[in-house]
Amino acid sequence: MLYIIGLGLGDEKDITIRGLEAIRSCTNVYMEAYTSLLSFGLSSNGLSNLESLYGKSIILADREMVEEKSDDILSEAHHSHVAFLVVGDPFGATTHTDLVVRAKKLGIDVKIVHNVSVMNAIGICGLQLYRYGETVSIPFFTDTWRPDSFYEKIQTNRNMGLHTLCLLDIRVKEPTLESLARGRKIYEPPRYMTINTAIEQLLEIEQARQESAYGEDTECVGFARLGSEDQMIVAGTMKQLQTIDFGAPLHCLVITGKTHPLEEEMLDFYRCRT
Amino acid sequence: MLYIIGLGLGDEKDITIRGLEAIRSCTNVYMEAYTSLLSFGLSSNGLSNLESLYGKSIILADREMVEEKSDDILSEAHHSHVAFLVVGDPFGATTHTDLVVRAKKLGIDVKIVHNVSVMNAIGICGLQLYRYGETVSIPFFTDTWRPDSFYEKIQTNRNMGLHTLCLLDIRVKEPTLESLARGRKIYEPPRYMTINTAIEQLLEIEQARQESAYGEDTECVGFARLGSEDQMIVAGTMKQLQTIDFGAPLHCLVITGKTHPLEEEMLDFYRCRT
Repeated sequence: MLYIIGLGLGDEKDITIRGLEAIRSCTNVYMEAYTSLLSFGLSSNGLSNLESLYGKSIILADREMVEEKSDDILSEAHHSHVAFLVVGDPFGATTHTDLVVRAKKLGIDVKIVHNVSVMNAIGICGLQLYRYGETVSIPFFTDTWRPDSFYEKIQTNRNMGLHTLCLLDIRVKEPTLESLARGRKIYEPPRYMTINTAIEQLLEIEQARQESAYGEDTECVGFARLGSEDQMIVAGTMKQLQTIDFGAPLHCLVITGKTHPLEEEMLDFYRCRT
Repeated sequence: MLYIIGLGLGDEKDITIRGLEAIRSCTNVYMEAYTSLLSFGLSSNGLSNLESLYGKSIILADREMVEEKSDDILSEAHHSHVAFLVVGDPFGATTHTDLVVRAKKLGIDVKIVHNVSVMNAIGICGLQLYRYGETVSIPFFTDTWRPDSFYEKIQTNRNMGLHTLCLLDIRVKEPTLESLARGRKIYEPPRYMTINTAIEQLLEIEQARQESAYGEDTECVGFARLGSEDQMIVAGTMKQLQTIDFGAPLHCLVITGKTHPLEEEMLDFYRCRT
């Protein structure tokens, strides 16, 4: 049996009873380190807190391990219970569909233990989840690579009065170009896009396209460390949010569409006072 | 302190450790009965299972009570800890924004304990959550009231290649028209729309509009009791799904947009064999 278990967004206490019972029944417990290192593994005592609550040691599986060693993980799951832990929900912003497909093709039973993901936790700001259009990703621009496919999507959403969730780039364990050329991988330091960078890039593209999909006066909501005890949520214009230090990652950004009175009332509690 | 605590979608074991600890710290524990009666309260031993796990009695709060007695609930929260339990996530498909707004205006501390909601649990079928457009609601048609505003939304989503989540009508504790006229409320029996009825209504509107937003050969995914042990998930055309008995509520339906190969691979596991 392969359990894929969502851990939620905050700390070790965000697991469900169902998830905890499943982990305790498992021989081996893997944890996806790609997006989760930050939330759990690298935080002060994150990993050991998880281990002591679960009563199990956790094997951190980085992106390479998941890609290269998943055959081993899956073959263990043939004859014993194996847990694969994921921050948020197993099918949230980061997807584990591929692992599930491979397991099912091998005839391994797969059980999913759901949890909150960024995709629904953003509901806390008061913007109704059913009033969102397509989600977009904002990638880090480089000197030569400045993809702007998010622009039309935001434009379409806003034309329909819909809100847009912008997921901001995460670069963890990216090999340097130089090291790839030399055939021995050396990794870039991890990078997590801030709300400030995201807005800078968004405004750069608006400046270039000039189609008024949004602008520096467009109302947005910035979220940092959503779902954890020290989460920070601020509503304001792009210009206002750009001046705010949201602190440690992860960040995400919502660009509002047309808001309803009750949505406005909730946003007021988060509104920037500058 | 007012805690608004998501219970997840299955049974008592889907609460998080954080949620459980919060409940145990509370003087009074209310549970929203409007959408939750079905999942927890009315199921064989639902409510007593919750109570025995929590070590607390639960006061069921139906829609009227939430609307009429929320002042009392809020005034308790001024001087003690009060929990308000909600199926799914506090800001999922059914929103509790209004209660939060009123509490905050009264200066009451509000803490949200998140959980999975239908809005992200549908990820389990393999269709990527960031490839969904606006969510639509399908209301029960009556002889004289056949609203079809969902039609343009589905059309827009599908034109952009996006999937559409259709939330199906729930009618719990609706006073009969006759009883309203007489000034003494008598309630209709609860009704939960099935996938079959939803598809029937969808096709009726397509028939009337003839704009090919979708049709009986459009690929869909039907979900019944999503997130519980006996959930049923079937992928197939509208025509195929219309012949399937999905059993007890709650049901929801996803109309696919343009699918990617990995999405197709996942859908294959759920595909209807008729």
